[in-house]
Amino acid sequence: MYRAKVNITLRKSILDPKGKAARHALQNLGLKEIDQVRIGKLIELDINAENEEIARELADSACSQLLANEVMEDYHIEIEKT
Amino acid sequence: MYRAKVNITLRKSILDPKGKAARHALQNLGLKEIDQVRIGKLIELDINAENEEIARELADSACSQLLANEVMEDYHIEIEKT
Repeated sequence: MYRAKVNITLRKSILDPKGKAARHALQNLGLKEIDQVRIGKLIELDINAENEEIARELADSACSQLLANEVMEDYHIEIEKT
Repeated sequence: MYRAKVNITLRKSILDPKGKAARHALQNLGLKEIDQVRIGKLIELDINAENEEIARELADSACSQLLANEVMEDYHIEIEKT
């Protein structure tokens, strides 16, 4: 059993309106030292696989087919044994 | 300048309908080895702070005041120098 931690972030060139709104709200709360906010997704997958390589392939397949939008988003996968 | 990476995850006891829906869709795509899916948030903050400790305090304050809902979510902060 493996756990894949997938970080999905918006590409640098894509505007992040949720992040902009959060930054604005933080400034209004007095946290003026916080300069930029970017909001992405963290997805944890529990995978039944024989080895780490197969687990990584399955996670990659899940990302490219469903979880990430590769036009706008980058993803990074970390695998750990559980 | 520091960058805080904040992982926000739903507490174990809270049902994750987005994760359940994603799991169901992955099963329909034939990825039957993926057993559980949990979806959280990954927030990156760029912080102007003199040292790591102050940066961590600011990130923690941002999380508890705005970014995380501590009734339903846990958060974990990592600080790196940029």
